[in-house]
Amino acid sequence: MPQHPRGPRYTRTMAELPATVPFVGPEAQERSRGRPFRARIGANESVFGPSPRAIEAMRQAAADCWMYADPENHDLKAALAKHHGVDFENIVVGEGIDALLGYTVRMLIEPGDPVVTSLGAYPTFNFHVAGFGGKLVRVPYRGDREDPEALLDAARRENAKLVYFANPDNPMGTWWGASEVQRLIDGLPPGTVLLLDEAYSDTAPADAIPPIDVSNPQVLRLRTFSKAYGLAGLRVGYAIGEAGLIRSFDKIRNHFGVNRMGQVGALAALADQPYLDSVVRKIAEARERIAAIAQSNGLEALPSATNFVAIDCGGDGAFAKRVLEELIARDVFVRMPGVAPLDRCIRISAGTESDLAVLSEALPEALKAARG
Amino acid sequence: MPQHPRGPRYTRTMAELPATVPFVGPEAQERSRGRPFRARIGANESVFGPSPRAIEAMRQAAADCWMYADPENHDLKAALAKHHGVDFENIVVGEGIDALLGYTVRMLIEPGDPVVTSLGAYPTFNFHVAGFGGKLVRVPYRGDREDPEALLDAARRENAKLVYFANPDNPMGTWWGASEVQRLIDGLPPGTVLLLDEAYSDTAPADAIPPIDVSNPQVLRLRTFSKAYGLAGLRVGYAIGEAGLIRSFDKIRNHFGVNRMGQVGALAALADQPYLDSVVRKIAEARERIAAIAQSNGLEALPSATNFVAIDCGGDGAFAKRVLEELIARDVFVRMPGVAPLDRCIRISAGTESDLAVLSEALPEALKAARG
Repeated sequence: MPQHPRGPRYTRTMAELPATVPFVGPEAQERSRGRPFRARIGANESVFGPSPRAIEAMRQAAADCWMYADPENHDLKAALAKHHGVDFENIVVGEGIDALLGYTVRMLIEPGDPVVTSLGAYPTFNFHVAGFGGKLVRVPYRGDREDPEALLDAARRENAKLVYFANPDNPMGTWWGASEVQRLIDGLPPGTVLLLDEAYSDTAPADAIPPIDVSNPQVLRLRTFSKAYGLAGLRVGYAIGEAGLIRSFDKIRNHFGVNRMGQVGALAALADQPYLDSVVRKIAEARERIAAIAQSNGLEALPSATNFVAIDCGGDGAFAKRVLEELIARDVFVRMPGVAPLDRCIRISAGTESDLAVLSEALPEALKAARG
Repeated sequence: MPQHPRGPRYTRTMAELPATVPFVGPEAQERSRGRPFRARIGANESVFGPSPRAIEAMRQAAADCWMYADPENHDLKAALAKHHGVDFENIVVGEGIDALLGYTVRMLIEPGDPVVTSLGAYPTFNFHVAGFGGKLVRVPYRGDREDPEALLDAARRENAKLVYFANPDNPMGTWWGASEVQRLIDGLPPGTVLLLDEAYSDTAPADAIPPIDVSNPQVLRLRTFSKAYGLAGLRVGYAIGEAGLIRSFDKIRNHFGVNRMGQVGALAALADQPYLDSVVRKIAEARERIAAIAQSNGLEALPSATNFVAIDCGGDGAFAKRVLEELIARDVFVRMPGVAPLDRCIRISAGTESDLAVLSEALPEALKAARG
């Protein structure tokens, strides 16, 4: 960054940070393309939308938005605590999981501190670690899954303060059973905190989610209303954890950061579990449909416990990128993993029948063009 | 903070931070009191609400909240740039001014770095400075106004990277003319950035706001939709500044932090300037009414360019606090400055006729009880 002679004096960490962003939004792509997408199935949003009760609650609350939202997020926290069978003091609500990742990194990581994650895992976590000067240590996936043993080895070797692990995984959609996750938790070295990102827990098999133990100060369980609940645009995520660790967020969080619509919408969405169940069924059907589309094009779909499916395009990263670009050229918004060997895949979010009809039509052409 | 033997290893800054919060919300007070307030005139919200066009836009957008909002805040930034006659690259939108204050402190302040503000000014700024380990240097108000000359002297003496100055001021409602503010800007030592908090600019006289100069990398102008625009619950603030300084926010901000309702509501509110004008008139009338209520109780209202009025209760801080508590006991939510000599005042937000009728009824009783 060029330094103006009278201009700002940035911290050393800031001065060294590259000017990267974690994701380019589909809106920016639409602006540069000059036309909208026909199918928006790239950001693992829920095309099925939120509960009608959440929509109605937001509509009712629109005129109340002159009031700051409750900075304690009291009503939502109380409902979440009841939902998960934990105490009020075991929940912190934030501006999406993204904000909670940032707060956690800030609480623990000083410049140079090692942080362990998987090579190809969630870029926004890496963005926050870099943003606080942490030293990212990345271990490879194994068989398209994050590798708990390798994460533990790295945590021990590096004396890491923080380990990130998503289960089910993004961007691959794979998962581990609860017993393997519990083994990871039990194996954490002293002074290491596990960020267990369970953004996709709502679509996961029940036996993939270990029981919540809020007596353990080494684990933060991250959940969100952005995926199966269908409220990505409202930015409401939360962490479940030991009371002391949860309380520490109050020292630094943007206390008025969660917005009123988010509080109101999330509370109504949480109360409508039958709707959530119906969405989870639709997501499962969409996964089947995506896998069938892949198969009919001679491609393999990876098993998924999330609201998206990774499709192995059968070549290398360069080939998958060509397929992706050809899909985008055909107005299908999709994304793909960023590093090898995961990047032989493209990632398709669960779509409506209409979305997937567009995919079904575009994929053969995209493959042909990519091969041509 | 008690340290669990296997628990988190916090940064030194975190470990030393006290467990304070900048504000207790009125909702928490209502919960502890066991009954709601009759008049909510303590948080400088706009009781007049947002533009009906903003309400309608939010209602329309409720069903779209399954989509992440555009992380570039493109449409809102473009509209704001046009509104202020600056370029797109001179605007950054954040989760309220609070988030932008936090980001700015994070970009510039390392532990021990001096930061200058006024003694009794916005507590959330202090919260962020403490949260990044900055050394707060506070200069007294002079005649119930922040003191630009003293701020400059302190900035020079301390070699401060950052100076905070609100014009119009919160919590006193007082203001400086544009020429005095310009003198502050022109006098900044090299390497000092001025956070010019203009949250209350919409209600200020035109001659209190110096022209915007985006060639100057030493000034960030902070604006918000939380005050006269009536959208506090949506968390949309923005900063106007030099392109390089603005771009630096992208290195660290929560890119998806601004919510869809906030983007949609703010865009519609900005487009309805006649509504804003009508609210500003109502606020001016409410200020007159508050001053009249004060006078009829033998108290003095300070002149105000904001959406609130500071009332000098005619005694010391302990007396004003008793008045405040007696008002709260009579279901009137108000706040007061935190430090002497400002704390001889209580702070009343512009209310509806109904709100101010409640105040008018409660204040004589509260004064009597506080004196008794």
